Amino acid sequence: MRTELTRALNFFATTRIRRSPFWPGVVAAGVHSCSVYNHTLLPVHFRTPEEDYRHLKSRVQLWDVSCQRQVAVRGKDATKTLALFVPRRVESMVVGRCYYIPAVDQCGKLLNDPLVLKLAEDSYWVSIADSDLSLWIKGLKAGFELDVQVWEPDVSPLAVQGPLAGKLMGRVFGEEVRKLRFFGYGRFGFKNRELVISRSGYSRQGGYEIYIDRPDLAMPLWEALMEAGRDLDVGPGSPNYTERIEAGMLSYGGDVTIENDPYECGLGKYCDLEGASDCLAREPLLRIREQGPARCVRSLAISGPPAPMCDKAWRLACGDRFAGRITAASWSWDLETNVAIGMVEAPYWDAGTELTVELPGRTETATVRGSSFT
Amino acid sequence: MRTELTRALNFFATTRIRRSPFWPGVVAAGVHSCSVYNHTLLPVHFRTPEEDYRHLKSRVQLWDVSCQRQVAVRGKDATKTLALFVPRRVESMVVGRCYYIPAVDQCGKLLNDPLVLKLAEDSYWVSIADSDLSLWIKGLKAGFELDVQVWEPDVSPLAVQGPLAGKLMGRVFGEEVRKLRFFGYGRFGFKNRELVISRSGYSRQGGYEIYIDRPDLAMPLWEALMEAGRDLDVGPGSPNYTERIEAGMLSYGGDVTIENDPYECGLGKYCDLEGASDCLAREPLLRIREQGPARCVRSLAISGPPAPMCDKAWRLACGDRFAGRITAASWSWDLETNVAIGMVEAPYWDAGTELTVELPGRTETATVRGSSFT
Repeated sequence: MRTELTRALNFFATTRIRRSPFWPGVVAAGVHSCSVYNHTLLPVHFRTPEEDYRHLKSRVQLWDVSCQRQVAVRGKDATKTLALFVPRRVESMVVGRCYYIPAVDQCGKLLNDPLVLKLAEDSYWVSIADSDLSLWIKGLKAGFELDVQVWEPDVSPLAVQGPLAGKLMGRVFGEEVRKLRFFGYGRFGFKNRELVISRSGYSRQGGYEIYIDRPDLAMPLWEALMEAGRDLDVGPGSPNYTERIEAGMLSYGGDVTIENDPYECGLGKYCDLEGASDCLAREPLLRIREQGPARCVRSLAISGPPAPMCDKAWRLACGDRFAGRITAASWSWDLETNVAIGMVEAPYWDAGTELTVELPGRTETATVRGSSFT
Repeated sequence: MRTELTRALNFFATTRIRRSPFWPGVVAAGVHSCSVYNHTLLPVHFRTPEEDYRHLKSRVQLWDVSCQRQVAVRGKDATKTLALFVPRRVESMVVGRCYYIPAVDQCGKLLNDPLVLKLAEDSYWVSIADSDLSLWIKGLKAGFELDVQVWEPDVSPLAVQGPLAGKLMGRVFGEEVRKLRFFGYGRFGFKNRELVISRSGYSRQGGYEIYIDRPDLAMPLWEALMEAGRDLDVGPGSPNYTERIEAGMLSYGGDVTIENDPYECGLGKYCDLEGASDCLAREPLLRIREQGPARCVRSLAISGPPAPMCDKAWRLACGDRFAGRITAASWSWDLETNVAIGMVEAPYWDAGTELTVELPGRTETATVRGSSFT
């Protein structure tokens, strides 16, 4: 029985999978592959994977990441609400800044790894990865009788990423936007409307995320950026599978799941348990920190020719002992090796450790690196 | 600018989108299109849409619906937990039966429309539609300090649907399985293991759902059913877009969302507010029931030649007044018209009302029907 899928799988699009307000631009730009993220269509490829990758690293791209939905948390108890599931000092967050946080349940298991924007003393946007975090927060609100509103506003982020992102953004929003520090955000005018823009994004190439809160502004913004960046060779793009593996950026649901705690995910540096006195998971996380995790996310290099798509985890072994699992892998055209992310068991996670990995149809050597290649 | 997508969109498969244990069988059976449901790949088409549809209505199909995840709720407070968000008398549910329920938040908005299996007095499986309902229940557990465990066990349903489903099931599980009443379930042996099997499924053709709780049993089960049904022309299939529209079966996230209450969704008959004294949404739902909903899901027939894919809602109008939105539509080869589901505003929802509908590139007449075509 042939059980490997060798041909392409077409996507069957119903209204259950939401379209973004940038969709006309995405189609005109020639999208040819997609995924689904937060019940929303995520455009993936426009040219070959290598062309998309090299273009991101040398020019500037527009990414339709409207699938990165916002959960709005607003009201008297907004800070108190976040403090229940964020293992750090939420009350010391400041307006105008973004925070990458592990969102955890009461056992300390990862529910999401969003970016939080503090909009006002009583108002946050939680910019979510691929899980319905709003349902968790709504459940807390009901159970703890919190004086807070929780909803998903119709906000669609457009990411502008790549080394020329600052130049392009300056042309459209004025030079002030270039003064934003990393993980800072501000409000900038476009068509008589103030848009939230943050210096952030899911790449190591530098860039911005623009939060469109009125769908009718989406295509004018897309077209204004395309027009202003013509001589910069601006083009369409997407969170880039290869580049994000090189950068050691995690994908929730793939590399890390609700089975993992923040320490296993390498997110211990985003935890501040001393400051997290109201976090439901404080006690379990203190125990985990004390004991140290039994496994941890690592970057790995895989020997041999370009690896096939890692659509199901690949087993890592040391001799015949289980050593972990590879959850993402790609040929890196810049590094001229296969780059990968995996969850590696404690005895094997030191940099330099050589493991074997079972790819479809072949066995290769996987060498543990640090937390990224870049 | 060309903004309609006329070519096929390939699906980019990473580990973030889960594969089912039936996947080798699905691939060998020739799957060529897919969707994503509950972060899991859902196979859609195997032959032409017309062939898949006619085969379902005349033979028997195996559907890999492992994407229909189970949320296990178990413990002393299990019934109390469900009673918080199920607007009916949960304590009168009986072991051995399945219940289709609206799952609502404290405002009475729809979070999911799952099937609930009562496994024991203190144990339920909530067989979910496309939203992370487990996060809501986990939030309630934390806030109300409920003595209950909430998790997604690794259970993958396989649906056996079509007029010959009973015959096929009897051959593999014995004639006893055919005595199950609609929405009843039982435990039946397969390879020295007891499997939960319910008389249920997302079609009007009759059928069963088999809940595999050990991945290594998935392919043996798939193969046993394929082998036993050879002379019945058993084949692969999927929740059928056309057949489910004819049957008026809803798709959560598409036809109805968190914006809707159960009465708007036509699910008032699954509410029993007199018996739902512990439901958080009892008061708001009593008010909504009293006032009557402002809009409601309806079946509609659309004139003209076969409609294109409805991947974005189509506006319904009466003259120039907004009358609702079509959220699913398909040519019905049996009924020889376009069948559709839409959310129709109150003044226009009576059967026989003729509205206009704006499809891509043309305007047609949409005639309101009852709650289904079948």
